[in-house]
Amino acid sequence: MAIKGRSEDLSSGRVRLGMVGGGQGAFIGSVHRLAARMDDHYSLVAGALSSQKKRAVASALELGIAKDRAYGSYEEMAAKEAARPDGIEAVSIVTPNHMHFPIAKAFLKAGIHVICDKPLTTTTKDARELVALTKKSKRIFAVTHNYAGYPMVRQARAMVAAGDLGKLRVVQVEYPQDWLTERLEASGHKQAAWRTDPKQSGAGGSVGDIGTHAHQLASFVSGLTLDSICADLTSFVKGRKLDDNVNILMRYKGGAKGMLWASQVAPGNENALRLRVYGDKGGLEWSQESPNELWHAPYGEARRLLTRAGNGADEAAGRVTRVPPGHPEGYLEGFANIYTEVAAAIRAARAGKKPDAAVYFPTVEEGLNGVAFVEAAVRSSAKGAVWVKL
Amino acid sequence: MAIKGRSEDLSSGRVRLGMVGGGQGAFIGSVHRLAARMDDHYSLVAGALSSQKKRAVASALELGIAKDRAYGSYEEMAAKEAARPDGIEAVSIVTPNHMHFPIAKAFLKAGIHVICDKPLTTTTKDARELVALTKKSKRIFAVTHNYAGYPMVRQARAMVAAGDLGKLRVVQVEYPQDWLTERLEASGHKQAAWRTDPKQSGAGGSVGDIGTHAHQLASFVSGLTLDSICADLTSFVKGRKLDDNVNILMRYKGGAKGMLWASQVAPGNENALRLRVYGDKGGLEWSQESPNELWHAPYGEARRLLTRAGNGADEAAGRVTRVPPGHPEGYLEGFANIYTEVAAAIRAARAGKKPDAAVYFPTVEEGLNGVAFVEAAVRSSAKGAVWVKL
Amino acid sequence: MAIKGRSEDLSSGRVRLGMVGGGQGAFIGSVHRLAARMDDHYSLVAGALSSQKKRAVASALELGIAKDRAYGSYEEMAAKEAARPDGIEAVSIVTPNHMHFPIAKAFLKAGIHVICDKPLTTTTKDARELVALTKKSKRIFAVTHNYAGYPMVRQARAMVAAGDLGKLRVVQVEYPQDWLTERLEASGHKQAAWRTDPKQSGAGGSVGDIGTHAHQLASFVSGLTLDSICADLTSFVKGRKLDDNVNILMRYKGGAKGMLWASQVAPGNENALRLRVYGDKGGLEWSQESPNELWHAPYGEARRLLTRAGNGADEAAGRVTRVPPGHPEGYLEGFANIYTEVAAAIRAARAGKKPDAAVYFPTVEEGLNGVAFVEAAVRSSAKGAVWVKL
Amino acid sequence: MAIKGRSEDLSSGRVRLGMVGGGQGAFIGSVHRLAARMDDHYSLVAGALSSQKKRAVASALELGIAKDRAYGSYEEMAAKEAARPDGIEAVSIVTPNHMHFPIAKAFLKAGIHVICDKPLTTTTKDARELVALTKKSKRIFAVTHNYAGYPMVRQARAMVAAGDLGKLRVVQVEYPQDWLTERLEASGHKQAAWRTDPKQSGAGGSVGDIGTHAHQLASFVSGLTLDSICADLTSFVKGRKLDDNVNILMRYKGGAKGMLWASQVAPGNENALRLRVYGDKGGLEWSQESPNELWHAPYGEARRLLTRAGNGADEAAGRVTRVPPGHPEGYLEGFANIYTEVAAAIRAARAGKKPDAAVYFPTVEEGLNGVAFVEAAVRSSAKGAVWVKL
Repeated sequence: MAIKGRSEDLSSGRVRLGMVGGGQGAFIGSVHRLAARMDDHYSLVAGALSSQKKRAVASALELGIAKDRAYGSYEEMAAKEAARPDGIEAVSIVTPNHMHFPIAKAFLKAGIHVICDKPLTTTTKDARELVALTKKSKRIFAVTHNYAGYPMVRQARAMVAAGDLGKLRVVQVEYPQDWLTERLEASGHKQAAWRTDPKQSGAGGSVGDIGTHAHQLASFVSGLTLDSICADLTSFVKGRKLDDNVNILMRYKGGAKGMLWASQVAPGNENALRLRVYGDKGGLEWSQESPNELWHAPYGEARRLLTRAGNGADEAAGRVTRVPPGHPEGYLEGFANIYTEVAAAIRAARAGKKPDAAVYFPTVEEGLNGVAFVEAAVRSSAKGAVWVKL
Repeated sequence: MAIKGRSEDLSSGRVRLGMVGGGQGAFIGSVHRLAARMDDHYSLVAGALSSQKKRAVASALELGIAKDRAYGSYEEMAAKEAARPDGIEAVSIVTPNHMHFPIAKAFLKAGIHVICDKPLTTTTKDARELVALTKKSKRIFAVTHNYAGYPMVRQARAMVAAGDLGKLRVVQVEYPQDWLTERLEASGHKQAAWRTDPKQSGAGGSVGDIGTHAHQLASFVSGLTLDSICADLTSFVKGRKLDDNVNILMRYKGGAKGMLWASQVAPGNENALRLRVYGDKGGLEWSQESPNELWHAPYGEARRLLTRAGNGADEAAGRVTRVPPGHPEGYLEGFANIYTEVAAAIRAARAGKKPDAAVYFPTVEEGLNGVAFVEAAVRSSAKGAVWVKL
Repeated sequence: MAIKGRSEDLSSGRVRLGMVGGGQGAFIGSVHRLAARMDDHYSLVAGALSSQKKRAVASALELGIAKDRAYGSYEEMAAKEAARPDGIEAVSIVTPNHMHFPIAKAFLKAGIHVICDKPLTTTTKDARELVALTKKSKRIFAVTHNYAGYPMVRQARAMVAAGDLGKLRVVQVEYPQDWLTERLEASGHKQAAWRTDPKQSGAGGSVGDIGTHAHQLASFVSGLTLDSICADLTSFVKGRKLDDNVNILMRYKGGAKGMLWASQVAPGNENALRLRVYGDKGGLEWSQESPNELWHAPYGEARRLLTRAGNGADEAAGRVTRVPPGHPEGYLEGFANIYTEVAAAIRAARAGKKPDAAVYFPTVEEGLNGVAFVEAAVRSSAKGAVWVKL
Repeated sequence: MAIKGRSEDLSSGRVRLGMVGGGQGAFIGSVHRLAARMDDHYSLVAGALSSQKKRAVASALELGIAKDRAYGSYEEMAAKEAARPDGIEAVSIVTPNHMHFPIAKAFLKAGIHVICDKPLTTTTKDARELVALTKKSKRIFAVTHNYAGYPMVRQARAMVAAGDLGKLRVVQVEYPQDWLTERLEASGHKQAAWRTDPKQSGAGGSVGDIGTHAHQLASFVSGLTLDSICADLTSFVKGRKLDDNVNILMRYKGGAKGMLWASQVAPGNENALRLRVYGDKGGLEWSQESPNELWHAPYGEARRLLTRAGNGADEAAGRVTRVPPGHPEGYLEGFANIYTEVAAAIRAARAGKKPDAAVYFPTVEEGLNGVAFVEAAVRSSAKGAVWVKL
């Protein structure tokens, strides 16, 4: 009932963490903080929480950050923290997409580990630069494709890898929401505004915001690599600058086929990420809104409902599990698993060791794959929804 | 609790019915007979139940058909029945696909109404000829796209037509099964054999067998017309001659977009036809395996679970409903609704009248649309999954 | 895909059936007729469909019954049909409860098999007399505890009998509805009126109408016999004469314990009969509103979803199954299974044989058990909800 | 998206917390710590984590507690912490049941707020003493009936209180588990051992462990007070000293009726706490394993699925909600809500104020009600399952 990296043993000290973005009123920043706090592996000690100095400082003080570590800019924070003997070991980047790249670059160059929200960057060029820089700097770089943190997603991946489904044939992934059914961005809604603004979001709308999650989840669980896609992106809401509905056909290397649907204009859907994978020996189905369950259909046998920590749960799920079966874990716990795994890796790095083989978090390379996926989708759609290689 | 056409009032006499195909051991033939019998509107009085004379006669006698009306060929049956004063008024055609055309043609020419299994024919050329012949002969021609017979499907269509969803944007339809996951056709399985044989099935495998159902359901409920599709058909099972997995992007006239997935190699799926439709005012979701339920999500309000005959069920559902809410109706009841509606139309025709405006059954034109859909999908896929017009 | 008794082979002729009750506007009568017709084993040839002669005759003619067999009273019908060489072999009794006894008695005495709606009678005294008369007359007597006709209920019973659950410990059965939440009987609603009238229903309201179904289902599946119960019956709706909510603790012979809840005042429940049975090796769960599914939880293993005709379905379910997995069967199919099994028994009786060992329908003895259950519940509750023996 | 008491504003400083029990290997202790940490309102600064001194200290150090505040006994901790200027403001008691009373008493007497696991004590005598002492000491006393912390449970209570269901008639609550299906306590399983030992658990087994949760949930949501119960407790597993299955009929003051089932021998059930409440205007249904959903059935209208933070969620749910709809919150979040509400109350107390009217946590009086319920159930069952007053 305890993940290895999740021991409450604090004898080696918490990881010193800073944050860029996430000031008062921001949503994802508070999620990152809670995720970092859940298993008690981090101390939030520094922040450049807003690009407005005053708001940045006020936000930091509220969070118990010392005044001298409440920075007005990420550049200042990277420089000063790198110079302190008790400077931060890692930074969380929770700004709009277009700022991920310069900020991550600054901290990597300052020798600080990076935990960055998705999508990694707004261009593959930038993403490739971060991959190279990560390699060169030997720092840890995690991208919070948080759905890979769910225990039953881990188990799904392990089952596919173990051959439980046989050779994969079909991947169906979808991620419908409804919160952009109307033109929310015109009403002063901050989240909607930057997500539908190409300057802050990049060239992808829904495809970047949620399509990347769907793509990462499908890739993570299936272990497959995309060969080419045919994407039909649509902007249904009048006046909207970016896509709000995403229909994609996928062809994987090795012959498997797939479909991906992402939408932010599908009334009745809250956050309905769902993955189905089929091979010649069986199928799996997982839904983010019922994350403690995983359906397994061995071909020719009755379907089984595998549950987190319950009968049928395996080691892959067990190590990222906190409470017994029937005591639901949710979004925050899954998100926290990413942070906790990163903490295990940072502690290993402190000791000059490799992390335990079971430690997993989405890497900068996976971040690059996500950006490449968005670029390919936009390119395909712009040409009339034709097949493009990844 | 009673559909208008479903009154048990037999004072005007049952419709005299014949059947072609559906001899001993056939599946769909017995479904058609049960559907015809359910509301007691038909008498099965003639049959050419097999192309083998001996088996045809034995099958007919078992079913209580008189010996002189147990025919060895459909040609003989059409001729002799047309000549009898008490000859059949309608014929059910339940053979493999490639025989639908010549048989339907023969009976239409003999002045007999036709109820034909789907897909209507194996080519659009043949389908168009049947459309023309139907018009000319003034006979009734129903195609058993039976899923349109479910009460909550009727209600979904009515709700869309009434504008409850606003302007439609997104259609998601899928029809996964798993029974062809392995090469069943090589093991002497009769159903699998003809369905995977281009000579009997036509050019479409899964796309013809179940993709046509999915297409018809989406068209029926949405009221939309396809403009073009991009289809990626795959034959995953080694040695199989026709597609067993169907991935299609759809563009409707008027701007709505859609996706259609049909598969017979998705382990854990029995007969999981499912439709979701979204407009700017709301969404609907219906699953064939829970047919008495219809989810309605008015945008900005809590989702409602509408149930057959229950709170929220409307007139469209009510008229094809037999038992109270919570008493599940199923596949056979939905199928029977097609037969019962056809009986109402035939009785109106007997009286030289138009049927009640609420009477609905899938027509020969809808059958043609299904065949056109299959042809377009096969054509698109053959060219590498490019966009083709319908 | 075919039950033995369900063969469409009519060579031995249909069973000649009469009906008492079920005239125009009645609900359960049309259900019985449809159930009899579904597998084509019966011909409805006589009826005393209403106690009002005129309505009785009009109803019969509508149903295609010959004028001379459209009777004004059941006594006349029993006498005349018994005297005809082509008289009915069986009668369906679908009147309000208080008439079951005299009618059943009359037909048994006339040597005619009986299919009677539930509860069997309004007193155990009457029920015992029917048991004795059935034995003496050597006629078949079936009580339409129709939920025992569902395939997955058959399988549940078979699994318990085979020891799949080990020694049974706990039985939980419930049957909530909501249609009597308000005082419907005061508004001229015919169904509500007789069901809440002690003169027509007997001493039990909900406990007789639906509690008996719950009791029969639990007994049928578990194979257990009640030792004693403690029943707290309530009439929540002001002015109602009989109970509309039933809370019962149960003790079975052998040590198992149970609870039974039946209610007709539970808003949101349509017909939510549900059974759960637990032993020391596993558990089973079945819900009438999703009748094609049966959950099986072997202790210590992942739960399995067994489906009618699907993977994990056994012979007990298979023999009362018509269509493939994923093609839902419902209430009418389950009801029809009772009729079809009775037809098999009648045909065996015609031939002087015992029916096939697998043939099952609820017997007059099970009907007596139901009436005894109602009496005990009423007695217990009247004394303040104390334990009473059965 | 933020609860008032959940603001991340730490300017007034975290609440200084101590813990008794919950050393290495304990389950519920780590849940309490995580719950306290989730919204960052507490600092764990002292502990008597085990009755074995060595283990107590080792556990404390691992958790980052200073050596001089790692106590070997709760008596020492209460005395020394009360004497420190920076002593703990509140203590969490997470020992087996029989120790709750002396520990709570000691800390209340030392002027320290108490957060105690349930059931409050093993006798009502002790519980009453704690109620009196709480009143006298003017300390806050919370009992972690954590299921009352779930947002949709809060909403259910608010809806009932607002009259949305009309006058309540029927309460159905159940709490089945399966982890004690076999004699786990004989195999060295620590959790099972103390829970089935009357010396540590008190006179109730399942009725104390989970029956109290079910009772509290039903009381909390319905707002009803029990008048009398009739309880049939069983110990199915051979050699077990306490009940493992609980069947109870309930009568509430005012005329509502209810049933409560709790079981730890029901294979296939993990932690399936579920509540249904029905009044003359509607019904509600909530299941702990799908805690983000609440079914609402207004009588005569279609059922609605209300979701946490989604359409239909009200203020009562909203204030204890962290993340948007479709991002599931779970057991730990619900548990944390209790802690966060207590922190709000403690901060108000610091300032000499009353907490905000919306602040809710289960009180020592509710703890007493739970113990009284257990005693009544045991008394009723011992007399053969007769009605007893509460």
